[in-house]
Amino acid sequence: MSLPDPLERLVVEFSRLPGIGRKTAQRLAFGVLRYSPEEARRFSEAIVEVKQRVRPCSECGAFTEEDPCRLCTDARRDRTVLCVVEQPNNIFPLEKSGVFRGLYHVLMGAISPLEGIGPAQLRIAALKRRVLHEGVQELVLATNPSVAGEATALFLQQEFSGLVPRITRLARGLPSGSDLDYVDDVTLMEAFSGRQAF
Amino acid sequence: MSLPDPLERLVVEFSRLPGIGRKTAQRLAFGVLRYSPEEARRFSEAIVEVKQRVRPCSECGAFTEEDPCRLCTDARRDRTVLCVVEQPNNIFPLEKSGVFRGLYHVLMGAISPLEGIGPAQLRIAALKRRVLHEGVQELVLATNPSVAGEATALFLQQEFSGLVPRITRLARGLPSGSDLDYVDDVTLMEAFSGRQAF
Repeated sequence: MSLPDPLERLVVEFSRLPGIGRKTAQRLAFGVLRYSPEEARRFSEAIVEVKQRVRPCSECGAFTEEDPCRLCTDARRDRTVLCVVEQPNNIFPLEKSGVFRGLYHVLMGAISPLEGIGPAQLRIAALKRRVLHEGVQELVLATNPSVAGEATALFLQQEFSGLVPRITRLARGLPSGSDLDYVDDVTLMEAFSGRQAF
Repeated sequence: MSLPDPLERLVVEFSRLPGIGRKTAQRLAFGVLRYSPEEARRFSEAIVEVKQRVRPCSECGAFTEEDPCRLCTDARRDRTVLCVVEQPNNIFPLEKSGVFRGLYHVLMGAISPLEGIGPAQLRIAALKRRVLHEGVQELVLATNPSVAGEATALFLQQEFSGLVPRITRLARGLPSGSDLDYVDDVTLMEAFSGRQAF
Protein backbone atom coordinates (compact mmCIF):
# COMPACT_ATOMS: atom_id res chain seq x y z
CA MET A 1 0.00 0.00 0.00
CA SER A 2 1.46 3.30 -1.07
CA LEU A 3 0.70 6.68 0.53
CA PRO A 4 -2.18 8.72 -0.91
CA ASP A 5 -0.74 10.95 -3.67
CA PRO A 6 -0.95 14.32 -1.88
CA LEU A 7 0.64 12.77 1.21
CA GLU A 8 3.43 11.24 -0.89
CA ARG A 9 4.06 14.65 -2.50
CA LEU A 10 4.36 16.32 0.91
CA VAL A 11 6.75 13.59 2.09
CA VAL A 12 8.90 14.25 -1.00
CA GLU A 13 8.86 18.00 -0.29
CA PHE A 14 9.94 17.49 3.33
CA SER A 15 12.72 15.09 2.30
CA ARG A 16 14.19 17.77 0.02
CA LEU A 17 15.04 19.87 3.11
CA PRO A 18 18.62 19.68 4.42
CA GLY A 19 19.26 16.69 6.68
CA ILE A 20 15.74 15.24 6.37
CA GLY A 21 15.54 11.59 5.29
CA ARG A 22 12.52 9.67 4.05
CA LYS A 23 11.53 8.44 7.49
CA THR A 24 11.66 11.84 9.18
CA ALA A 25 9.83 13.36 6.20
CA GLN A 26 7.00 10.87 6.75
CA ARG A 27 6.82 11.76 10.43
CA LEU A 28 6.63 15.47 9.58
CA ALA A 29 3.96 14.92 6.91
CA PHE A 30 1.87 12.89 9.36
CA GLY A 31 2.32 15.79 11.78
CA VAL A 32 0.84 18.20 9.22
CA LEU A 33 -2.13 15.84 8.71
CA ARG A 34 -2.99 16.38 12.36
CA TYR A 35 -3.04 20.16 11.89
CA SER A 36 -6.27 22.10 11.63
CA PRO A 37 -6.80 23.60 8.15
CA GLU A 38 -6.01 26.99 9.75
CA GLU A 39 -2.65 25.75 11.10
CA ALA A 40 -1.75 24.21 7.73
CA ARG A 41 -2.59 27.49 5.96
CA ARG A 42 -0.39 29.49 8.38
CA PHE A 43 2.55 27.10 7.84
CA SER A 44 2.04 27.20 4.09
CA GLU A 45 1.97 31.02 4.04
CA ALA A 46 5.10 31.31 6.19
CA ILE A 47 7.03 29.44 3.49
CA VAL A 48 5.90 31.69 0.64
CA GLU A 49 6.31 34.82 2.74
CA VAL A 50 9.88 34.08 3.78
CA LYS A 51 10.85 33.86 0.10
CA GLN A 52 8.97 37.06 -0.76
CA ARG A 53 10.27 39.22 2.08
CA VAL A 54 13.69 37.94 3.12
CA ARG A 55 16.64 38.49 0.77
CA PRO A 56 20.42 38.78 1.02
CA CYS A 57 21.64 42.28 1.94
CA SER A 58 23.21 43.79 -1.21
CA GLU A 59 26.10 45.05 0.91
CA CYS A 60 27.09 42.17 3.23
CA GLY A 61 24.88 39.27 2.05
CA ALA A 62 23.10 38.71 5.41
CA PHE A 63 19.43 37.62 5.40
CA THR A 64 17.35 40.76 5.75
CA GLU A 65 14.01 42.44 5.08
CA GLU A 66 15.55 45.92 4.67
CA ASP A 67 18.38 46.60 2.23
CA PRO A 68 21.02 47.44 3.37
CA CYS A 69 20.48 45.30 6.46
CA ARG A 70 20.28 46.48 10.08
CA LEU A 71 23.87 45.35 10.70
CA CYS A 72 25.27 47.39 7.80
CA THR A 73 23.34 50.52 8.84
CA ASP A 74 24.11 50.21 12.58
CA ALA A 75 26.30 53.23 13.44
CA ARG A 76 27.63 51.51 16.59
CA ARG A 77 29.39 48.74 14.64
CA ASP A 78 33.11 48.96 13.89
CA ARG A 79 33.26 49.49 10.12
CA THR A 80 37.01 48.85 9.91
CA VAL A 81 36.75 45.10 10.60
CA LEU A 82 35.01 42.65 8.23
CA CYS A 83 34.27 39.08 9.28
CA VAL A 84 34.10 36.83 6.18
CA VAL A 85 31.70 33.86 6.40
CA GLU A 86 30.49 31.27 3.90
CA GLN A 87 26.71 31.43 4.40
CA PRO A 88 24.21 34.01 5.68
CA ASN A 89 23.19 31.72 8.54
CA ASN A 90 26.80 31.66 9.82
CA ILE A 91 26.18 35.21 11.05
CA PHE A 92 23.61 34.20 13.68
CA PRO A 93 25.87 32.12 15.97
CA LEU A 94 28.54 34.84 15.83
CA GLU A 95 25.99 37.54 16.69
CA LYS A 96 24.50 35.41 19.44
CA SER A 97 27.92 35.01 21.08
CA GLY A 98 28.33 38.81 21.05
CA VAL A 99 32.07 38.36 20.44
CA PHE A 100 32.26 40.46 17.26
CA ARG A 101 31.26 44.12 16.80
CA GLY A 102 32.40 44.74 13.21
CA LEU A 103 30.57 44.13 9.92
CA TYR A 104 30.16 40.91 7.95
CA HIS A 105 30.72 39.74 4.41
CA VAL A 106 28.98 36.60 3.18
CA LEU A 107 30.71 34.74 0.34
CA MET A 108 27.61 32.64 -0.47
CA GLY A 109 29.62 29.43 -0.55
CA ALA A 110 33.15 28.08 -0.43
CA ILE A 111 35.62 27.10 -3.13
CA SER A 112 34.86 23.52 -4.18
CA PRO A 113 36.09 22.46 -7.65
CA LEU A 114 34.15 19.19 -7.46
CA GLU A 115 30.89 21.13 -7.17
CA GLY A 116 32.01 23.62 -9.82
CA ILE A 117 32.37 26.46 -7.32
CA GLY A 118 35.43 28.63 -7.97
CA PRO A 119 36.29 32.16 -6.77
CA ALA A 120 34.15 33.65 -9.57
CA GLN A 121 31.01 32.04 -8.11
CA LEU A 122 31.59 33.67 -4.70
CA ARG A 123 31.06 37.29 -3.60
CA ILE A 124 34.80 38.03 -3.74
CA ALA A 125 34.68 40.97 -6.19
CA ALA A 126 32.19 42.64 -3.82
CA LEU A 127 34.56 41.97 -0.93
CA LYS A 128 37.43 43.58 -2.84
CA ARG A 129 35.29 46.65 -3.53
CA ARG A 130 34.47 47.01 0.17
CA VAL A 131 38.08 46.50 1.24
CA LEU A 132 39.39 49.08 -1.26
CA HIS A 133 36.77 51.79 -0.73
CA GLU A 134 35.61 51.54 2.86
CA GLY A 135 38.81 51.83 4.91
CA VAL A 136 38.82 48.21 6.10
CA GLN A 137 41.72 47.52 8.48
CA GLU A 138 41.19 43.83 9.20
CA LEU A 139 39.64 40.81 7.51
CA VAL A 140 38.68 38.03 9.94
CA LEU A 141 38.39 34.81 7.91
CA ALA A 142 35.63 32.76 9.53
CA THR A 143 35.09 30.13 6.84
CA ASN A 144 34.26 26.62 8.06
CA PRO A 145 37.02 24.33 9.37
CA SER A 146 36.46 22.00 6.38
CA VAL A 147 38.47 21.31 3.21
CA ALA A 148 36.39 23.79 1.18
CA GLY A 149 36.49 26.39 3.95
CA GLU A 150 40.26 26.05 4.30
CA ALA A 151 40.81 26.33 0.54
CA THR A 152 38.67 29.46 0.51
CA ALA A 153 40.55 31.04 3.44
CA LEU A 154 43.89 30.29 1.76
CA PHE A 155 42.69 31.83 -1.50
CA LEU A 156 41.45 34.97 0.27
CA GLN A 157 44.68 35.30 2.23
CA GLN A 158 46.69 35.32 -1.03
CA GLU A 159 44.20 37.52 -2.87
CA PHE A 160 43.93 40.22 -0.18
CA SER A 161 47.44 40.34 1.34
CA GLY A 162 48.74 43.81 0.48
CA LEU A 163 45.21 45.19 0.09
CA VAL A 164 44.33 45.18 3.80
CA PRO A 165 46.69 45.75 6.77
CA ARG A 166 45.63 42.69 8.73
CA ILE A 167 44.20 39.27 7.79
CA THR A 168 43.34 36.88 10.63
CA ARG A 169 41.41 33.66 10.94
CA LEU A 170 39.50 32.06 13.82
CA ALA A 171 41.65 29.97 16.18
CA ARG A 172 41.66 26.18 15.82
CA GLY A 173 41.92 23.84 18.79
CA LEU A 174 39.96 21.86 21.36
CA PRO A 175 36.29 22.82 21.55
CA SER A 176 35.24 23.89 25.05
CA GLY A 177 33.51 21.15 27.03
CA SER A 178 35.00 18.35 24.93
CA ASP A 179 37.00 15.36 26.13
CA LEU A 180 40.49 14.49 24.89
CA ASP A 181 39.37 10.88 24.45
CA TYR A 182 36.81 11.86 21.87
CA VAL A 183 38.63 14.58 19.95
CA ASP A 184 39.66 13.65 16.39
CA ASP A 185 43.30 13.50 15.22
CA VAL A 186 43.22 16.64 13.08
CA THR A 187 41.80 18.75 15.91
CA LEU A 188 44.36 17.34 18.32
CA MET A 189 47.17 18.10 15.86
CA GLU A 190 45.95 21.66 15.47
CA ALA A 191 45.57 22.09 19.23
CA PHE A 192 49.18 20.97 19.64
CA SER A 193 50.72 23.00 16.85
CA GLY A 194 48.75 26.06 18.04
CA ARG A 195 49.54 25.62 21.75
CA GLN A 196 50.05 28.81 23.70
CA ALA A 197 52.25 29.94 26.62
CA PHE A 198 50.37 29.43 29.89
CA MET B 1 20.56 40.40 16.31
CA SER B 2 17.28 38.57 15.90
CA LEU B 3 16.09 36.84 12.74
CA PRO B 4 14.08 38.88 10.24
CA ASP B 5 10.37 38.54 11.19
CA PRO B 6 9.22 36.29 8.31
CA LEU B 7 12.22 33.99 8.92
CA GLU B 8 11.45 33.85 12.64
CA ARG B 9 7.82 32.95 11.84
CA LEU B 10 8.93 30.10 9.56
CA VAL B 11 11.32 28.82 12.24
CA VAL B 12 8.41 28.80 14.72
CA GLU B 13 6.24 26.91 12.22
CA PHE B 14 8.91 24.26 11.65
CA SER B 15 9.51 23.85 15.38
CA ARG B 16 5.80 23.01 15.87
CA LEU B 17 6.31 19.80 13.85
CA PRO B 18 6.81 16.56 15.84
CA GLY B 19 10.40 16.02 16.99
CA ILE B 20 11.73 19.29 15.54
CA GLY B 21 13.61 21.55 17.98
CA ARG B 22 14.58 25.19 17.55
CA LYS B 23 17.97 24.42 16.03
CA THR B 24 16.69 21.96 13.42
CA ALA B 25 13.84 24.36 12.65
CA GLN B 26 16.41 27.07 11.87
CA ARG B 27 18.33 24.73 9.58
CA LEU B 28 15.12 23.85 7.72
CA ALA B 29 14.09 27.51 7.40
CA PHE B 30 17.53 28.40 6.02
CA GLY B 31 17.06 25.52 3.59
CA VAL B 32 13.79 27.06 2.35
CA LEU B 33 15.56 30.42 1.89
CA ARG B 34 17.82 28.72 -0.66
CA TYR B 35 14.79 27.50 -2.64
CA SER B 36 13.69 29.17 -5.85
CA PRO B 37 10.32 30.94 -5.50
CA GLU B 38 8.88 28.11 -7.62
CA GLU B 39 10.21 25.44 -5.23
CA ALA B 40 8.85 27.33 -2.22
CA ARG B 41 5.43 27.65 -3.88
CA ARG B 42 5.35 23.90 -4.60
CA PHE B 43 6.24 23.05 -0.97
CA SER B 44 3.67 25.51 0.31
CA GLU B 45 0.93 24.07 -1.91
CA ALA B 46 1.74 20.48 -0.89
CA ILE B 47 0.93 21.41 2.71
CA VAL B 48 -2.46 22.93 1.91
CA GLU B 49 -3.31 20.17 -0.54
CA VAL B 50 -2.60 17.34 1.87
CA LYS B 51 -5.11 18.83 4.29
CA GLN B 52 -7.70 19.37 1.56
CA ARG B 53 -7.47 15.95 -0.08
CA VAL B 54 -6.34 13.43 2.54
CA ARG B 55 -8.80 12.43 5.29
CA PRO B 56 -9.38 9.45 7.58
CA CYS B 57 -11.40 6.63 5.99
CA SER B 58 -14.88 6.68 7.59
CA GLU B 59 -14.71 2.89 7.88
CA CYS B 60 -11.22 2.03 9.19
CA GLY B 61 -9.65 5.45 9.88
CA ALA B 62 -6.67 5.06 7.49
CA PHE B 63 -5.38 8.13 5.61
CA THR B 64 -7.07 8.17 2.22
CA GLU B 65 -8.25 10.26 -0.72
CA GLU B 66 -11.20 7.98 -1.51
CA ASP B 67 -13.80 7.04 1.13
CA PRO B 68 -13.96 4.16 1.94
CA CYS B 69 -10.23 3.65 1.42
CA ARG B 70 -8.54 1.27 -1.01
CA LEU B 71 -7.85 -1.19 1.82
CA CYS B 72 -11.51 -1.39 2.89
CA THR B 73 -12.70 -1.87 -0.71
CA ASP B 74 -10.01 -4.42 -1.66
CA ALA B 75 -11.89 -7.72 -2.28
CA ARG B 76 -8.69 -9.75 -1.79
CA ARG B 77 -8.32 -8.78 1.89
CA ASP B 78 -9.54 -11.10 4.63
CA ARG B 79 -12.53 -9.26 6.12
CA THR B 80 -12.79 -11.57 9.14
CA VAL B 81 -9.62 -10.25 10.83
CA LEU B 82 -9.29 -6.68 12.10
CA CYS B 83 -5.92 -5.27 13.19
CA VAL B 84 -6.45 -2.49 15.74
CA VAL B 85 -3.83 0.32 15.73
CA GLU B 86 -3.55 3.66 17.51
CA GLN B 87 -2.76 6.00 14.61
CA PRO B 88 -3.34 6.00 10.83
CA ASN B 89 0.42 6.05 10.18
CA ASN B 90 0.81 2.77 12.12
CA ILE B 91 -0.76 1.05 9.10
CA PHE B 92 2.15 1.81 6.76
CA PRO B 93 4.87 -0.26 8.49
CA LEU B 94 2.46 -3.19 8.80
CA GLU B 95 1.50 -2.98 5.12
CA LYS B 96 5.15 -2.61 4.12
CA SER B 97 6.05 -5.82 5.96
CA GLY B 98 3.27 -7.64 4.06
CA VAL B 99 2.63 -9.76 7.13
CA PHE B 100 -1.08 -8.96 7.46
CA ARG B 101 -3.85 -9.46 4.87
CA GLY B 102 -6.92 -8.49 6.89
CA LEU B 103 -8.49 -5.06 7.48
CA TYR B 104 -7.50 -2.33 9.93
CA HIS B 105 -9.22 -0.26 12.55
CA VAL B 106 -7.59 2.98 13.71
CA LEU B 107 -8.49 4.11 17.24
CA MET B 108 -7.10 7.65 16.68
CA GLY B 109 -5.16 7.55 19.94
CA ALA B 110 -4.68 5.52 23.09
CA ILE B 111 -6.22 5.70 26.55
CA SER B 112 -4.30 8.29 28.55
CA PRO B 113 -6.14 9.80 31.55
CA LEU B 114 -3.39 12.43 32.01
CA GLU B 115 -4.09 13.79 28.53
CA GLY B 116 -7.83 13.49 29.05
CA ILE B 117 -8.18 10.66 26.54
CA GLY B 118 -10.61 7.97 27.67
CA PRO B 119 -12.41 5.24 25.70
CA ALA B 120 -15.08 7.76 24.62
CA GLN B 121 -12.47 9.81 22.75
CA LEU B 122 -11.36 6.79 20.70
CA ARG B 123 -13.08 5.07 17.76
CA ILE B 124 -14.25 2.19 19.96
CA ALA B 125 -17.99 2.46 19.25
CA ALA B 126 -17.19 2.20 15.53
CA LEU B 127 -15.05 -0.87 16.25
CA LYS B 128 -17.93 -2.47 18.15
CA ARG B 129 -20.26 -1.80 15.21
CA ARG B 130 -17.83 -3.47 12.79
CA VAL B 131 -17.29 -6.45 15.08
CA LEU B 132 -21.02 -6.99 15.60
CA HIS B 133 -22.17 -6.53 12.00
CA GLU B 134 -19.34 -7.66 9.76
CA GLY B 135 -18.61 -11.21 10.87
CA VAL B 136 -15.24 -10.44 12.44
CA GLN B 137 -13.55 -13.60 13.77
CA GLU B 138 -10.35 -12.13 15.21
CA LEU B 139 -9.17 -8.82 16.65
CA VAL B 140 -5.36 -8.38 16.51
CA LEU B 141 -4.46 -5.71 19.08
CA ALA B 142 -1.48 -3.82 17.67
CA THR B 143 -1.41 -0.82 19.99
CA ASN B 144 2.04 0.50 20.92
CA PRO B 145 4.16 -1.31 23.56
CA SER B 146 3.82 1.74 25.85
CA VAL B 147 1.83 2.40 29.02
CA ALA B 148 -1.01 4.03 27.08
CA GLY B 149 -0.95 1.32 24.41
CA GLU B 150 -1.04 -1.43 27.04
CA ALA B 151 -3.90 0.21 28.91
CA THR B 152 -5.83 0.47 25.65
CA ALA B 153 -5.20 -3.18 24.74
CA LEU B 154 -6.33 -4.29 28.19
CA PHE B 155 -9.50 -2.21 27.94
CA LEU B 156 -10.31 -3.62 24.47
CA GLN B 157 -9.67 -7.17 25.64
CA GLN B 158 -12.23 -6.74 28.45
CA GLU B 159 -14.69 -4.82 26.28
CA PHE B 160 -14.69 -7.28 23.36
CA SER B 161 -14.25 -10.68 25.01
CA GLY B 162 -17.49 -12.54 24.26
CA LEU B 163 -18.21 -10.36 21.22
CA VAL B 164 -15.50 -11.84 18.98
CA PRO B 165 -14.21 -15.47 18.95
CA ARG B 166 -10.53 -14.57 19.13
CA ILE B 167 -8.57 -11.61 20.54
CA THR B 168 -4.77 -11.64 20.06
CA ARG B 169 -2.01 -9.12 20.50
CA LEU B 170 1.40 -8.73 18.82
CA ALA B 171 4.18 -10.76 20.46
CA ARG B 172 6.62 -9.04 22.83
CA GLY B 173 10.29 -9.97 23.06
CA LEU B 174 13.76 -9.24 21.72
CA PRO B 175 13.76 -7.11 18.57
CA SER B 176 15.58 -8.79 15.67
CA GLY B 177 19.15 -7.59 15.21
CA SER B 178 19.44 -6.31 18.78
CA ASP B 179 22.08 -7.21 21.36
CA LEU B 180 21.31 -8.64 24.81
CA ASP B 181 23.73 -6.11 26.30
CA TYR B 182 21.63 -3.20 25.12
CA VAL B 183 18.12 -4.51 25.66
CA ASP B 184 16.15 -2.85 28.48
CA ASP B 185 14.90 -4.71 31.56
CA VAL B 186 11.23 -4.72 30.64
CA THR B 187 11.90 -6.17 27.19
CA LEU B 188 14.17 -8.80 28.71
CA MET B 189 11.52 -9.69 31.26
CA GLU B 190 8.91 -10.04 28.54
CA ALA B 191 11.26 -12.11 26.37
CA PHE B 192 11.78 -14.46 29.32
CA SER B 193 8.19 -14.78 30.44
CA GLY B 194 7.14 -15.29 26.80
CA ARG B 195 9.89 -17.80 25.97
CA GLN B 196 8.87 -20.56 23.59
CA ALA B 197 9.74 -24.26 23.16
CA PHE B 198 12.66 -24.60 20.74
